[in-house]
Amino acid sequence: MTQSKAPFSTAEYERRLCKTRAAMADAGLDALFVTDPSNQAWLTGYDGWSFYVHQGVIVTMEGEPIWWGRYMDMMGGRRTCWMDHANILGYGDHFVQSTVVHPMQDLAEQLKTRGFTAARIGVEMENYYYSAKAHAVLTEELPEATLVDATALVNWQRLVKSDVEVDFIRKAARITEKVMLTAIDRAAPGVRKNDVVADIMKAGIEGIGDDWGDYPAIVPLTPSGLDATAAHLTWDGTPMRAGEATFFELSGCYRRYHAPISRTVFLGTPSDDMLRAEEAQLEGIAAGLEAARAGNRTSDIANAFMDVLAKHGIERSGRMGYPIGLSYPPDWGERTASIRTEDETVLQPGMVFHFMPALWMDSWGLETTETILIRENGAAEPLCDLERKLIVKG
Amino acid sequence: MTQSKAPFSTAEYERRLCKTRAAMADAGLDALFVTDPSNQAWLTGYDGWSFYVHQGVIVTMEGEPIWWGRYMDMMGGRRTCWMDHANILGYGDHFVQSTVVHPMQDLAEQLKTRGFTAARIGVEMENYYYSAKAHAVLTEELPEATLVDATALVNWQRLVKSDVEVDFIRKAARITEKVMLTAIDRAAPGVRKNDVVADIMKAGIEGIGDDWGDYPAIVPLTPSGLDATAAHLTWDGTPMRAGEATFFELSGCYRRYHAPISRTVFLGTPSDDMLRAEEAQLEGIAAGLEAARAGNRTSDIANAFMDVLAKHGIERSGRMGYPIGLSYPPDWGERTASIRTEDETVLQPGMVFHFMPALWMDSWGLETTETILIRENGAAEPLCDLERKLIVKG
Repeated sequence: MTQSKAPFSTAEYERRLCKTRAAMADAGLDALFVTDPSNQAWLTGYDGWSFYVHQGVIVTMEGEPIWWGRYMDMMGGRRTCWMDHANILGYGDHFVQSTVVHPMQDLAEQLKTRGFTAARIGVEMENYYYSAKAHAVLTEELPEATLVDATALVNWQRLVKSDVEVDFIRKAARITEKVMLTAIDRAAPGVRKNDVVADIMKAGIEGIGDDWGDYPAIVPLTPSGLDATAAHLTWDGTPMRAGEATFFELSGCYRRYHAPISRTVFLGTPSDDMLRAEEAQLEGIAAGLEAARAGNRTSDIANAFMDVLAKHGIERSGRMGYPIGLSYPPDWGERTASIRTEDETVLQPGMVFHFMPALWMDSWGLETTETILIRENGAAEPLCDLERKLIVKG
Repeated sequence: MTQSKAPFSTAEYERRLCKTRAAMADAGLDALFVTDPSNQAWLTGYDGWSFYVHQGVIVTMEGEPIWWGRYMDMMGGRRTCWMDHANILGYGDHFVQSTVVHPMQDLAEQLKTRGFTAARIGVEMENYYYSAKAHAVLTEELPEATLVDATALVNWQRLVKSDVEVDFIRKAARITEKVMLTAIDRAAPGVRKNDVVADIMKAGIEGIGDDWGDYPAIVPLTPSGLDATAAHLTWDGTPMRAGEATFFELSGCYRRYHAPISRTVFLGTPSDDMLRAEEAQLEGIAAGLEAARAGNRTSDIANAFMDVLAKHGIERSGRMGYPIGLSYPPDWGERTASIRTEDETVLQPGMVFHFMPALWMDSWGLETTETILIRENGAAEPLCDLERKLIVKG
């Protein structure tokens, strides 16, 4: 163990490793190769914008995890991981974006050297950072091994947060409040959207006091009017206009932990149908929070919301939320459970979700969402202290 | 064709389609499935932060390209793509992050419906957004088709920029100058790094005049002191200190086009070995720019730089640059040619590279880099007008 910038204690990392090994044992794995940057950071503390090249963490059934990446990033590994430097490996730069050789050839050698030539090795088949090519090369280089799909094996271990993780998310939530208030304050007819986003970004990265702001895994989503019927458009330089709704989906970020939230701002007087939708949405969220309690299921949250919507005669389908916490681009969701009618995940204290029952209509969108913590007792706790309503600016 | 927010003319998109089809013909492809968000945007104009779910562009040998993605993002496709709405397809939300069904099942149906059941279909095997799982499912769902690795087929078509693309990169370069001057101005002992980054972000997204700023594909890289020996660490809340070097690797972004650059700021009096390294680096960059001319090769740039370094007795290996332009996270490089001694790409007018001969030493890093345009005649043009030297603040 050496001194590093890793944000948690060695005991916390060992707890995580222990949970991961139990899941590996259940899956009959001898080793696991973790490519998701969030999983890497969760297990080792590794933190750098280097995930655009192949890198990952090797977990076996004993010893420290091994961080493996580009030689140039090994220095970043030494600075940020909690493990001994002997467990931070670098491959040569000639492997980077080459059409002749592939980094997975180096990884295969590392696995063979450690006795995993004919092992059962888990890989994250469904991950941004484990390409089809990477899998093909690793398969070819380890002909005697069995590569097993271990997608989300580590992600599932992250679902229930430790107390120190919840502390980090609460700090992120304070930053979220600040950025949302900045957005609401700045929104006005004639103000260019990019200027609003510039202030949001500045507010978020400044952070609050000693709690400096990190970059969120998703940029501010801030579409207005017709653009707000689409869920994921980013900003441009168009001035905001009276008579339009703008939704702000934003998150503060504290040391890679998130607490996303959405509010919708209407400049002028909203239409009656938007106000009716707001009423239904707020009532539905309240019902969802009541249903979001330990022992219930994710589907109970979705059904509670949908029942209210149906009562109000509004149709909606699709997912209404996902677990959040530690994350890297391009997604702040954890990609395990979903808040949707067909998901049967049992809620436990310490789970944190972005409860996201947005309404996207033909000509406008209404996003009012909360980051919620499942508690020992009672309804879920919304972690951001922000008035829950359609914000109308006259 | 319908009105959209796509930033280029239909003629420009048709030119791109035409180049892509020629490359497809050379590769003997009947169809191409493009997952790289940069390639999607380059072909169709699609622009949204939705690449964290499966989406892509189908290019066949006739007709418009087809954008395919999550149903929720189809609205974003209609708002941003240049094609007819009939060529913008959405799959149901139940496919999203499901462990039971996979979006590639829907894609396979779309391909079959269009007569590609037994076709030769190109896929981008080495891309963040084409997972090992996606490939496995698509292969299974199209048993009679031949899936061919077409990694970077579109990227290579992007290597030589059109005049309108160079205009966009020049606009990005103006924003880059602004953010770098902001960084240099703010850097001082006692100033927290995150506060510097907050101002960098704000300056970049405000943009310059009507040229509003977009989000760069990589966040500001701004490490100091020992952290600067690692290439890709992001910021934290530590105050800057006298006696330390900080490198700033930053890019403005104009409608997804980039012009990255690096400068190193030293607070205090730099050591003699850093000054010697600076002298070698600057002389090497000048030699590299001279070698970066149409008809020469990428390796000529690398060798010109390395020869100067060798003369100064400095050892360095690895890549020294890559083409840049349109990009999405996690990388602003185009992932085709590299500026390195073993790369033999012939330089042509209109190519734009981030020439990146950084020096990472044992106890400090020195990054001085340029975005350069290969011209019809003469040495390459550095697109940012910023003094090229180690910035010393006393």
